[in-house]
Amino acid sequence: MELLKQSIRQRGIALSEQVLKVDAFLNHQIDPLLMQAIGREFAARFREDGITKIVTIEASGIAPAVMTGLELGVPVIFARKHQSLTLTDNLLVASVYSFTKQVESTIAISTTHLSAHDRVLIIDDFLANGKAAKGLISIIQQAGASIAGLGIVIEKSFQQGRAELEEMGFRIESLARVISLKDGQITFLD
Amino acid sequence: MELLKQSIRQRGIALSEQVLKVDAFLNHQIDPLLMQAIGREFAARFREDGITKIVTIEASGIAPAVMTGLELGVPVIFARKHQSLTLTDNLLVASVYSFTKQVESTIAISTTHLSAHDRVLIIDDFLANGKAAKGLISIIQQAGASIAGLGIVIEKSFQQGRAELEEMGFRIESLARVISLKDGQITFLD
Repeated sequence: MELLKQSIRQRGIALSEQVLKVDAFLNHQIDPLLMQAIGREFAARFREDGITKIVTIEASGIAPAVMTGLELGVPVIFARKHQSLTLTDNLLVASVYSFTKQVESTIAISTTHLSAHDRVLIIDDFLANGKAAKGLISIIQQAGASIAGLGIVIEKSFQQGRAELEEMGFRIESLARVISLKDGQITFLD
Repeated sequence: MELLKQSIRQRGIALSEQVLKVDAFLNHQIDPLLMQAIGREFAARFREDGITKIVTIEASGIAPAVMTGLELGVPVIFARKHQSLTLTDNLLVASVYSFTKQVESTIAISTTHLSAHDRVLIIDDFLANGKAAKGLISIIQQAGASIAGLGIVIEKSFQQGRAELEEMGFRIESLARVISLKDGQITFLD
């Protein structure tokens, strides 16, 4: 997706060979017009897949997921990382290690909003080692729902997430694939 | 806003006299079409106020804030509650106590994205005791930016947040004002 790659080139920062900072438009400040374009692109790629629910994870997945939900006309569920007084239902949980935050956390979705009848599109801001994606997959499978695929805004293609998820049989649509962050240079796969 | 009040009546749950659960369309599952309508309503109320930035707080403020930003054509910043490896800039911080999570947390915004030239609209999902709003106000004032007002999706009008913020001179636009949650009944102010 060219508009996204432009934004990454112009406003992204390679903090190290592993960490890409896109706080200018995705992870801290959000560009709503870009999110709308991202939502339209994901919707176009999954429009024929019978999606009934989008599942993402707080916080940075919410903006692209909601824009995709708007385009597809389906609700969005965001998995919570932190316990809330209002999240009191039967919970489906998974354990996820976050590299960028360097903490292990439990993510949770209420069984109220996800059932075996659902066909789910997973949306997330980044795919790196695939830990968050696998946590979401576990929760969705616990609910008995089926998974149409994963829509990823930025894939770090030099990490093993895509390969492992593809081996598990999942379809992955990444809008930008970063193959290297060496020497402060952001290089895309194509 | 009638569509919002309908959603609260039909899908909201008064968990206690203090806690309103709207996990079905705002705090866990998100209704994108309702968020779009909310964004349009906030944009209509603040369109003449020269807004240059929207500021909200993760996670539940993001969806209504991004839809408002889309309508007004301005970026959205979400204050972070949790430290991230990519949030490395000079940070403006404030301490906020969350009633629904029963934890004190530090919220942060990078100085990179907020300056004295900005005119800010604060958007949040709930206004209760005003703690989160005051934390955001403190951060925005530390940046030297001016505040046009606060757009609140659901106000718990039986708590003191609105009164205290109005006393501080702030304009508050709440799309639904809940005056009581007694006996499991959700009652609106008007």
